[in-house]
Parts: sequence; structure tokens; C-alpha cells
Amino acid sequence: MSERIILGIDPGLNITGFGVIAAENGSLKLIDAGTVRSKASDPLTLRLTELFQGLVHIIDKYSPEVMGMEKIYSHYRHPATAIIMGHARGVLCLAAGLKGIRVESLPATRVKKAVTGNGRASKQQVNGMICRIFGIREELKPLDVSDALAVAVTLYEEERYARKH
Amino acid sequence: MSERIILGIDPGLNITGFGVIAAENGSLKLIDAGTVRSKASDPLTLRLTELFQGLVHIIDKYSPEVMGMEKIYSHYRHPATAIIMGHARGVLCLAAGLKGIRVESLPATRVKKAVTGNGRASKQQVNGMICRIFGIREELKPLDVSDALAVAVTLYEEERYARKH
Repeated sequence: MSERIILGIDPGLNITGFGVIAAENGSLKLIDAGTVRSKASDPLTLRLTELFQGLVHIIDKYSPEVMGMEKIYSHYRHPATAIIMGHARGVLCLAAGLKGIRVESLPATRVKKAVTGNGRASKQQVNGMICRIFGIREELKPLDVSDALAVAVTLYEEERYARKH
Repeated sequence: MSERIILGIDPGLNITGFGVIAAENGSLKLIDAGTVRSKASDPLTLRLTELFQGLVHIIDKYSPEVMGMEKIYSHYRHPATAIIMGHARGVLCLAAGLKGIRVESLPATRVKKAVTGNGRASKQQVNGMICRIFGIREELKPLDVSDALAVAVTLYEEERYARKH
């Protein structure tokens, strides 16, 4: 089986977490992980441009075959926040779309269940499991990064299972 | 006073209306208007790519100095719809951002009030006024087009007023 590069994204306008993993013969390797940020004081259009260009850079660097992204909750307390989050998620989808990379949306509960066994696990619990999976000993921060890696791991596991069955 | 090119947008995932107007010495001229569409049966990422590329094409063709866009209502009945609309609006903002074009957001009520004198005017009333302003005798369809032109007209009037005062 050849190596697969999978990109996981935890989308957000202030901070978007990303995680790049490689899978070969059922074993997972952490390639890169971090955040793309935009400045809250900048106009929305500039912030979207920064997010977009940040993700384009990551895609160009690692050429993932698929990008997994957390779905946005539709039960935000403030609908205006959900709409603005939608703007951010839209430009992140577009970055993948323009590069011809398949995008898969995963609900947060499915990611949590896949990684920790519990769909209601805390972000800290997800972080702990991600550190165990990849043998990370130092602190993995911020939580957007472990969330993004969790999306990548979940997507890999789900697609591996789907291929077998 | 030199000519100003203003682009108005009525954002939507299925249909985005656009209107390009030129303003010189206080008189307005219709340059182009129409829609950018995406197919409901296509995956979201592809649809966002289509919208983005459609708007990039319009921007490249007319080089507007500013793009006005209707704000999205945050009191949608279905928050999920508002989030998806946010995706569409995000890639439209980005198209302008990447081209260095200023983006201004206008609430629909302000546009309706500026064009018809009534913030609660129907889309049909807006359509009627837009046809009068530009001397359009045939039917102007769909309503997304007249809404987009109304955004452009409102933005022009507001900025002209702001410059004078």
C-alpha cells in the first residue's frame, strides 16, 4: 500500500488548526501541525485572504490527497457568529477546491468518538489521545491543533474501514 | 470628477446577482448585470469554486474600485442555511480581497430605503426603481440582479454623500 497524505482542519476565523499525517501500511506518522491565524483587528476580507493563503501554502507544501474538516455547529448561541464562521470555512473549502483536493466534512461528535471512544469527550481528552497516538511527549497546543489532527486520524480510519468492507 | 466603477453583489450559493455601474459627474450608467450560478447537485466545494471563479471573471473584466455586498440576515429560520450562505459570501469576499478591491457590507434594509425610500420595500419595488433609474424598459430578471444593482447604487450614493460632508 502506498503512502497517503491526509490533511485535517479545525476551521475558525481567529485560529484554524491544521494537521498533516501520513499513513502507510496502517501506521500513522505526524508530518506537520500548527495554526493559521488572522488578526481580529483586520477587516473581514483581509482576514479571509490570510486564512486562504495560509491554507494554500500548506496544501502546496504537502499535496494531501484529501482534506477533512470539522462541520460547523448550527446551534451557535449567536447566529451571526455562525455566519462569520461560515465565511472562514468557505474560503478554506475553496483553497482545497481550487487545488483539486477532495474535501470531507466530519461532525465533531464523530471525530471525538473515533479518537477517544466517546462522542462527548472534551477537547483535552482528544488532545491526550492524539499525543498518545503520535507519541508526542511535550504539550500539544493550542487545542485547535489536536482537533485538526483528530479529524485527519478519523478520516483515515473511516476510509480505511470503508475500503475493507 | 473621474469615472468610478462600482460592483454590487447580492450573494447566494444558488444564484449570486451582480451589477456593475459607472458613475461620472453624478450620473449613473449601467455597465453590466447578471448572475453567477452554481449547480445544487454539485458538491459544496465545487459550487464555491464556481462562484469564486465567476466573480473573479467579472472583477477582471471591469476592475471596480469597490464592491458592495448585501449582509446576510442572521435570523434565518434554519441556522444551517445561514452557515452555508456564509460559505458563499466568504468566497465572494475573498475574490475581491485577492484582487485588492475594497468590500463594503450593506444591510438590505438600508439598500431598500436608499433606492425606494422604504426600508421594507419588496424586491419587486426595488426592481421597479432600478429599472426607472437606468431607463430599462424590458423586464429585469431575476430579482437577484436588481438587488445587486440596488446595492451598487446605494453604495455610490452613500459614498458621494460622505465625500460632500
